[in-house]
Amino acid sequence: MSTEVIMNLKEQVKEALTVIEKRTVKNVFFVSCGGSFALMYMSKYVVDREAKIIDAHIYSSNEFLHRNHSKLGNDSIVILCSHSGKTPETVEAAKLAQAKGALTISLTNIIESPLAETAEIALKYEFGKEAGFTSSHSILYQITFAILKAVENNDKFEAIIKSLEQLQSVYDKALKYSEPKAKLFAELHKDEKVIYSMASGSNYGAAYSFAICSLMEQQWIHSNAIHAGEYFHGPFEILDESVPFVILLGLDETRPLEERALAFTKQYGRKITVLDAKEYDLAGINEEVKGYITPLVLNHVVRYYAEKLSIERNHPLHTRRYMGIVKY
Amino acid sequence: MSTEVIMNLKEQVKEALTVIEKRTVKNVFFVSCGGSFALMYMSKYVVDREAKIIDAHIYSSNEFLHRNHSKLGNDSIVILCSHSGKTPETVEAAKLAQAKGALTISLTNIIESPLAETAEIALKYEFGKEAGFTSSHSILYQITFAILKAVENNDKFEAIIKSLEQLQSVYDKALKYSEPKAKLFAELHKDEKVIYSMASGSNYGAAYSFAICSLMEQQWIHSNAIHAGEYFHGPFEILDESVPFVILLGLDETRPLEERALAFTKQYGRKITVLDAKEYDLAGINEEVKGYITPLVLNHVVRYYAEKLSIERNHPLHTRRYMGIVKY
Repeated sequence: MSTEVIMNLKEQVKEALTVIEKRTVKNVFFVSCGGSFALMYMSKYVVDREAKIIDAHIYSSNEFLHRNHSKLGNDSIVILCSHSGKTPETVEAAKLAQAKGALTISLTNIIESPLAETAEIALKYEFGKEAGFTSSHSILYQITFAILKAVENNDKFEAIIKSLEQLQSVYDKALKYSEPKAKLFAELHKDEKVIYSMASGSNYGAAYSFAICSLMEQQWIHSNAIHAGEYFHGPFEILDESVPFVILLGLDETRPLEERALAFTKQYGRKITVLDAKEYDLAGINEEVKGYITPLVLNHVVRYYAEKLSIERNHPLHTRRYMGIVKY
Repeated sequence: MSTEVIMNLKEQVKEALTVIEKRTVKNVFFVSCGGSFALMYMSKYVVDREAKIIDAHIYSSNEFLHRNHSKLGNDSIVILCSHSGKTPETVEAAKLAQAKGALTISLTNIIESPLAETAEIALKYEFGKEAGFTSSHSILYQITFAILKAVENNDKFEAIIKSLEQLQSVYDKALKYSEPKAKLFAELHKDEKVIYSMASGSNYGAAYSFAICSLMEQQWIHSNAIHAGEYFHGPFEILDESVPFVILLGLDETRPLEERALAFTKQYGRKITVLDAKEYDLAGINEEVKGYITPLVLNHVVRYYAEKLSIERNHPLHTRRYMGIVKY
């Protein structure tokens, strides 16, 4: 990504910060659909752990619209993401938020879009393999930590920015390391009808997006993102040697849940794919925020696995039968 | 259920109310695992909509333990449910909550259990087809609305109690109505390897428990509780005429999401089972809280569908290969 784009983004986040600083903020709502919704789990995790004042809520856009949360108001910030900026229920959600007096912040790839034009603060993210610091995930973190800094004087903003600046290099190294593993995964799973994913804490969103976007939407493979803690209270009974699991291991405080789920699955399963953030070279990522950064890396890598799978299955990632094709 | 058990429960809730009234309450955490976790979604929905002050959070017990939410403290109430009262991570969650100064309220079927003995307020629920007013779902609502009454002077407590008193009769009529439908579902789905469930709002928990408990745990059938709003942002691409869906339609404010999901599924799918609360006789349920009561009814009915399925498949609901059998 060019230095200009990066500097421009930093300027935008700085401006957003000055807007936020002028407001009373009691809660943040993370509101989106599908893949954009999935990316917000990690920010909910951050606010849950870091904030002394702010409460964090996360809802799929249409649920947010109809649930009509009683604490949405003047003291709220609503962060909304949509790649095209056209997702109808996310645009409606932004309008509801504004009608209730909340500050709206949009993340889109297209700045001339209904969502970006509706939101008070409109941030543009870049897309693709080189997006790194300017990707949706990175920008969401920049704005989340900016809010925590502005409202609560949280001291991790600088560490996050510095770490996110290294993201592209971390991504590149992680993909290079993962290439043979991703290829093996693709070969072994090309004929599977069901593949489960599993994670916890800040990484749950990466597992969710892998299940509902990469597998169900893009590969038409049955899936479910199982929460690693919930696994032992129902879902694990589905496990036998024929059932494939993709298990994410992050570096946040919930890692013991993921480790426990993996240990059990290894004992009774056979088709197990592990993406362990411990194996990736995270040089340049601040120790203090490593747990928060790993979901971005895991998400990037697991998407690469999906790409390899799509090639092996000869089912391109963009193949759709309904989305953007039929009316709904 | 005997009048004595019912009067005793009302007395317990009244006592809990006097304890709660003495505290400052800023948030409520709903913390449990599996089926007990699933039932809490409806209370989260209620607090989201009704509360002016209280924030509601919902976490699977081990996630709650490790996430270490920064707003858990003196001003918190933590509600924990475990059938046996022995779920280790739920007992640990109660201990953490108490160490942080929160008021803990347990719901168990066994009152001489580690969880009930740990919690400050221990409510005992009854179990089985006659439990109605004294069931876990009913008691959770009684305590949720008691908190809203005590802290916020919310006026729906009486309407909820009166409605819950009619629950058993509503359940009985709904099951009678559903018998031929449940049998047909069982016959048509006995050989299915994957069955999806779907709902939104307060009903999502019933869909979740059907997916992870009834299907995955008790029938070893692949499943995923798809959120009816998220459906259109990924999962719906899995749909074709061979993929079975069980769709719940409640009467809460998110019903349009469930209706939209159903309409789409009808257009491109063929194996569709609908449980529509509109078809049930809800006599005695207060109009004002009808939307809140329907998830209990839908949950009761969808469990009945699972029972019929288990008979048709000759796979008893209590069959397990890991839970309570092997170490984990």
